[in-house]
Formats: sequence, C-alpha cells, structure tokens
Amino acid sequence: MRAAFLGPEGTYSHAAMLADPRAPACDPLPLGSVHEAVLAVETGAAERAIVPIENSLEGAVGQTLDALAVGTEHVTIVGEVVHPVRHALIARDEVELGSVRAVLSHPQAAAQCAAFVRAELPQAVVVPVASTAEAVRLVAEGRAPAEPAAALGTPLAARLYGGVVLREGVEDGPGNETRFVWLARDAPPPAGGGDHKTSVVWWGGGDETPGWLVRCLSEFAFRGVNLTRIESRPRRLGLGHYMFFADLAGSTADASVAEAVEALRTQAETVKVLGSYPAA
Amino acid sequence: MRAAFLGPEGTYSHAAMLADPRAPACDPLPLGSVHEAVLAVETGAAERAIVPIENSLEGAVGQTLDALAVGTEHVTIVGEVVHPVRHALIARDEVELGSVRAVLSHPQAAAQCAAFVRAELPQAVVVPVASTAEAVRLVAEGRAPAEPAAALGTPLAARLYGGVVLREGVEDGPGNETRFVWLARDAPPPAGGGDHKTSVVWWGGGDETPGWLVRCLSEFAFRGVNLTRIESRPRRLGLGHYMFFADLAGSTADASVAEAVEALRTQAETVKVLGSYPAA
Repeated sequence: MRAAFLGPEGTYSHAAMLADPRAPACDPLPLGSVHEAVLAVETGAAERAIVPIENSLEGAVGQTLDALAVGTEHVTIVGEVVHPVRHALIARDEVELGSVRAVLSHPQAAAQCAAFVRAELPQAVVVPVASTAEAVRLVAEGRAPAEPAAALGTPLAARLYGGVVLREGVEDGPGNETRFVWLARDAPPPAGGGDHKTSVVWWGGGDETPGWLVRCLSEFAFRGVNLTRIESRPRRLGLGHYMFFADLAGSTADASVAEAVEALRTQAETVKVLGSYPAA
Repeated sequence: MRAAFLGPEGTYSHAAMLADPRAPACDPLPLGSVHEAVLAVETGAAERAIVPIENSLEGAVGQTLDALAVGTEHVTIVGEVVHPVRHALIARDEVELGSVRAVLSHPQAAAQCAAFVRAELPQAVVVPVASTAEAVRLVAEGRAPAEPAAALGTPLAARLYGGVVLREGVEDGPGNETRFVWLARDAPPPAGGGDHKTSVVWWGGGDETPGWLVRCLSEFAFRGVNLTRIESRPRRLGLGHYMFFADLAGSTADASVAEAVEALRTQAETVKVLGSYPAA
C-alpha cells in the first residue's frame, strides 16, 4: 500500500505517518505538495495519503482544506492522528551555536522558533525553504547559502540525510501539535455509535443573507450534534464569499448526523461529506 | 503622524497605505513583522498601523488576528482598505525573460505566479525571500544568487530600490486582493447609521458544550445583525480550543449591534470589540 504525503522524506507528515500506531504498513510516496498528495488518492496513484489539517498554534492548513473541498470527488477522510511538533536544530557537523550564519527552514517552523533563534543564534540569517526536510537536506549536503548553517526540522530528517542534531525541542512554546488526516478513495463510513467524527464542507445558496450561517449551524444544534470545529476559507470568488468546514461528533451512520447533513442540504447550494472516521 | 507596517518599504502593506484615498498623510515606519506593527500602536510608537487581515485567495492572515486578539488593550480598528495584489516582474536592467536564471520572491507571491514562471522563465530557479520588497531590493542591488535575476514584487518597490519593471500583472489568476485594516489607539466608534462594520473576537465560557457557537451567533441573528465574515483561530491551549472573529454590519453606536455584543458577553468568557469603522 502506497501512502502519499508532502515530501521530501523526513517532513512532519512523514514522521506522523511512521508514528501512528493505528496506521497500516505503507510504502512512502513523497510528493511536492499537499495538493498532489490529495490528488494521488483521487486518481488512485496512492491508496492512502496523510496530510496536515490543523495546527494548535497556526490554525487551519488552508491548502489541505482547499484540496479536499474542490477538485476531488472520491477522496474520503478515514482517520486522524495528532502528532507533536518538536523542532530540532540540525547541522552538517557539530558547531558552536553562536557562530551559525544561516538558519534554513520552512517559514512556519522558523516563526515557531523565532525567540530561540534570536537568543541563541544571533549571527544567523533566517533563510526560508519549501519544507523543513528540504532545509535539513540542504544543510546536510553543504548547500546552504552561508556556512556554518543549521536547519530547523525533524530528527527523522537528520537521520535520513545524515545531519547532526545539535538541540531538540527548540520551539518557543509548548503544546505545538498538528492534526493530520488519513485519506483513502471512496471509503464507507464506520458503523455508528462509537467515538467518531464527521467532516463536512458547505457553501453557497444564501451566504449573503442575514443569519444564513446561523441557520446552517442550527441544523446541527437542533439535532444535538456537537461541532468540535468550524473553519472558513475563501471561495476564490473575491472577498466576502466563503466555504465552511465543520467537524461533527458522530458518524454519518448515526441517524442524528445523517439527518443534520440532509437538512443542511436545504440551506446550502453544495454540501460535501468529507468522511466519518474514528476520533483520535 | 507615523504609520507602522510590515517592512521593508515597498511591501504590499506600504503600497496599500499609499493607495488609500481616505488615509491621512503619514510618515512610513517599516517594521520587521505584522506583530511589531500592531504593538507599535499599542505602545504609542506609531499613531497608526496598516496590517493585512484577509486575502481573497489565501484567507485570513493569522498573525494579524492573533495580534489583535491577545496582548493588546488599546489597539482599535479605525478603517479598512481593499488593495489588489498585482505582482510585477522586476530586474536590475532590461533583460530577455528567457535568460533569467533566478526569480526571487516571497513564497506566497512565487506560488501565485507559478504558471507564468514556468512558461516565460524556463531557466529560472525560484529563490524564496522574506518579503517581496526584500526580493526587489536584492535584485536591484545585484545581490541575487544567480544573474540575470528578477523579482516578483510591487512597482512601488521597483521605484524605491531602482529596479526596472519588465512586466506587470504576472499573477496566474485574476481576483487576488487583500483587505487591510488601519489601526489607532483607543479610537471611539463612528456615529451609527452609516455604512459601518464592527469587528469582534470572543472565546471561552462554554466552547465545549453542544450548540455553544450557535448560541453565540444567534445573538446577532436574533437582532438582525448580519455577519459579513467569521473566522476561527486556535487559542494556543492545544487543539480543540478556538477564538472566533466576526465582522458585523453596523457600528457599536447602533443599538442593535451594541445589544448583540452585550448579549454575547453572557455567552462567552471574553468578548473584545476590535473596533467599528467605515466599510470599504
């Protein structure tokens, strides 16, 4: 079974895939973007994908939500896993932190370690790179724009590319974790009654009229279906037009959830059930 | 009057500031981050700030929402302006597009021009830089990693740093625009009745109970107050805890808006009115 994820190997997506105790054994299929990982499931190029959907500090991962909402018809969320984000400082060789002249990382990781970098790497210029794993690879291969260089990334990437972990857990705040979802093609919902979640997205059909969003959400509240999360994303029709993502407690195999989703279809132009799956 | 914004000079924030016909004359105060620009108003280091809050393609600007919600007590939204995002291709001198070997830009701008770069600059490697203005500055000063080089940024930056605009409007899709808000310290709300918006943020006090968000939103719907936007952001207490930002039609000088906000205070632990201001 092939599992697609945002590559190269050694990203947090890859680390989350390896760390999930409930995951089946998979061959890694690293791809160039979250969007490509989602499409790999849609087209059958991969049987599974694991993609980040939400971070406890940064919020929603817009690319993932957008890819799930538009342009896919067969992609189903079949599971979720919460993985801690702990950044390591990685170099090619052992080096004095104060002498580091370039810190490579994904801009989000760099932002999460900003206080550490200011305090411990005062000489370093932050160099944005497409992913934390790419940052580690560049540093380990001696291809950074200035030397000595270090990267902020996963210990997994240090192992894969031959870097040295100088320091672990260099993020500024505690409690940084990312929720990932597992995707498969056309998976049926799990039987109701267990501890499940259902993810839906809807848009259009009245979003400019007063109280429309409340009417949509009332379809859940009215049936005692709890929302664990709601997120809005632009519909790319210009400012002021949004799609709404919600996570509901329960499976679409539960009558209350199924009825609420059907009722939502009377309020919104498009309602897409992204999947029902066991809660993490 | 000093106006703080995400620097260096020549960013889209700076361009939006200069383009706003309703803005007072301001001395530019470019700062290193959106967060610093917001804090400059809080501390009085600047009388105004202009910060991006929402993009029509990328969605909410989390850094801005977070800075407005937490850590500030005196910052008030006093206006908004919608500014088109039109990327220009800028070089040090006139150059054949096909010969360009490096394209510098902020990763978001580079992503928005990806098809153009593939088609017209087939030789070019994309080099991520901290801001579009920084990209233009590096190219204009001949400090790009390969030559000939070009940057994706604002014509304003080309003027400021001495670059040549090779092509304007090189973004792949139309309709890319960003909404910015103007900030001031402890500004009173405008008189009611006009075409105003009010921005609020709230959190806590029941967000784990079924239907809580619907009850909060119903306080607006019940009084006929329309929501033009809702956005959730993590409260940084771990996954599952959110704060909610809403833009309401009307000013807090309008009775219906004022009553809805007071009613919301009975539902949520914290309710913060970010400001009432003329709609763009």
